[in-house]
Amino acid sequence: MSGYKVPLSVTWVGGPKGHLRMVDQTLLPVRLAEIDLGDVEGVFESIVSLRIRGAPAIGIAGAFGLLVATRDAVCPNTFQKQLQIAAERLNSSRPTAVNLSWAIGRMLNRFEKSISLRPFEEWQGLLLEEAQRIQSEDHAMCLAMGDHGQDLIQDGYGVLTHCNAGGLATAAYGTALAVVYRAHEKGRNFRVYADETRPLLQGARLTAWELDQAGIPVTLICDNMAAQVMKEGKIQMVIVGADRIAANGDTANKIGTYGVACLARAHNIPFYVAAPSSTFDLSLPDGSGIPIEQRQPSEVANYQGKQTAPHGVDVYNPAFDVTPAGLICGIITEKGRIEPVNSTIIAEVLRKK
Amino acid sequence: MSGYKVPLSVTWVGGPKGHLRMVDQTLLPVRLAEIDLGDVEGVFESIVSLRIRGAPAIGIAGAFGLLVATRDAVCPNTFQKQLQIAAERLNSSRPTAVNLSWAIGRMLNRFEKSISLRPFEEWQGLLLEEAQRIQSEDHAMCLAMGDHGQDLIQDGYGVLTHCNAGGLATAAYGTALAVVYRAHEKGRNFRVYADETRPLLQGARLTAWELDQAGIPVTLICDNMAAQVMKEGKIQMVIVGADRIAANGDTANKIGTYGVACLARAHNIPFYVAAPSSTFDLSLPDGSGIPIEQRQPSEVANYQGKQTAPHGVDVYNPAFDVTPAGLICGIITEKGRIEPVNSTIIAEVLRKK
Repeated sequence: MSGYKVPLSVTWVGGPKGHLRMVDQTLLPVRLAEIDLGDVEGVFESIVSLRIRGAPAIGIAGAFGLLVATRDAVCPNTFQKQLQIAAERLNSSRPTAVNLSWAIGRMLNRFEKSISLRPFEEWQGLLLEEAQRIQSEDHAMCLAMGDHGQDLIQDGYGVLTHCNAGGLATAAYGTALAVVYRAHEKGRNFRVYADETRPLLQGARLTAWELDQAGIPVTLICDNMAAQVMKEGKIQMVIVGADRIAANGDTANKIGTYGVACLARAHNIPFYVAAPSSTFDLSLPDGSGIPIEQRQPSEVANYQGKQTAPHGVDVYNPAFDVTPAGLICGIITEKGRIEPVNSTIIAEVLRKK
Repeated sequence: MSGYKVPLSVTWVGGPKGHLRMVDQTLLPVRLAEIDLGDVEGVFESIVSLRIRGAPAIGIAGAFGLLVATRDAVCPNTFQKQLQIAAERLNSSRPTAVNLSWAIGRMLNRFEKSISLRPFEEWQGLLLEEAQRIQSEDHAMCLAMGDHGQDLIQDGYGVLTHCNAGGLATAAYGTALAVVYRAHEKGRNFRVYADETRPLLQGARLTAWELDQAGIPVTLICDNMAAQVMKEGKIQMVIVGADRIAANGDTANKIGTYGVACLARAHNIPFYVAAPSSTFDLSLPDGSGIPIEQRQPSEVANYQGKQTAPHGVDVYNPAFDVTPAGLICGIITEKGRIEPVNSTIIAEVLRKK
């Protein structure tokens, strides 16, 4: 019996004064374990150290993260102040994905516009409802993306993906992998090629694990083998997630995505992005304004405590890159497909209810 | 004081009845240690497990490897038989690089054509001379390649390289890195970007280490960052080594090279190969006939005993790929530069004395 079987990346345990629980993704695939978090610093640390990662998932974690900040507030002033401090702190955890600031902004907005007008005793419960709504909407959006994209994957296809845009990166099902899961549920036979995705190996550790759980055939390759499998005719389509998409369709995603897009173009293979509408940042006309997070050299020069390079060597370690819209065949959102990718079609699709 | 400082990858210790010593490259950069080898199986294992690697270096190791097979032979018959068995065994250690079979073939040829006509007592000493000649010729060829290519690297350049085509991969100086070392010795200021080169990280472990020793500025990147550093304008030239080059210039080299060549083309960056004439296999009209070694899944799914992917996941792990001649700007040999790359110019340059 095969099918989607990934545990929820983030859950809220208990009532309004409950706590956050998440899969510690740094332990996969060796061990599936959850951690309980009852304070903002714990949530902040979990996002920074990638225990939770994936643009939509860190948005959800950020929303629930606000709740752990306010759950013990004893008066309206403390509540509001702690909410504000937590919002700033969590917003600073990772700069590239826009979903985090989108989710936190939505929580603050809802609080200011309506919740703060209600009796203080209801605030925490109403905020919890909003966070849970963000989570369940993300779940529904992932399924919708899957449905809007699944027909792209035909029988016999090889589908290359980079990093993890799966259930672990979202509320459930994923973005790029929702398309894969839905095509699999339709009974189509295909194989996914998963780039291992250095330096943190989300493709090897998470994507290969998720697909394996679901019984979807998956072949793991090193990032530098993508060109070769394309040349051998093994790949008919590339699909990846996104961390932020500018108004013209330029797409920030995990480092290496831009290279894969160049290689797909060189081999005439269609390259798709799957992302919910919350990933779009229409305040940016193009990708040049997307901040790119630079991470520690130690991620490249070590692997789990094993030294892989000379001590003190210079390392360049950008966590993301930007793929120009011109290399993207289509963007699959919960509202439909953006195809071709340009600012007019983007605005048109995003306007849909 | 900066300059080339890499220990000899392979040395013969003692007289005709001596033994082989090599740097165990699997221990770098954590530890620089040499191993002594007195039997053919030890040499075979060292090549298979990549203690010694790099097309020219395994050619030299193969030549000396024949000597450890014959050093204890007490009569002409045993000598000839052991030489033949060792040649077959060592030839089977790695299929892609042509230098290994070239060096072994040269030793056998010299033995049959002249050494076997001399008194038995001289055989081992004369074979040793031939192996040492292969080694010193390789050293001289590397310096000549460096001289023929060094003017390509200008002040302020960023030079991307993949895998390790340095002193450790040859008798000394390297092929691609000989060009780098010679440009550095001319006083030119530039920076090398070293692809880490998964799965075995020869770029991180060996190239970064070699260049660091020589005082040449080097920045380590993951393979999937190559496109991004090109896009940022950091790279003005790519130079790599080769394991086998067909008559038309199609070039087999470490997996990932073909992808880098595609990316260089997409960014209008010149892509060069440096290799001695012994790397050419003119019996092959093009790259389609080059055998590509497939290596163990465990190289991708583990790192030094640490599990990096789900148990039993399918892995595709080709050790090499073939870059079509059309993506190569020039091939730097010890006889001069092949530029443009086509069968006529290749034949012309290789004919030179």
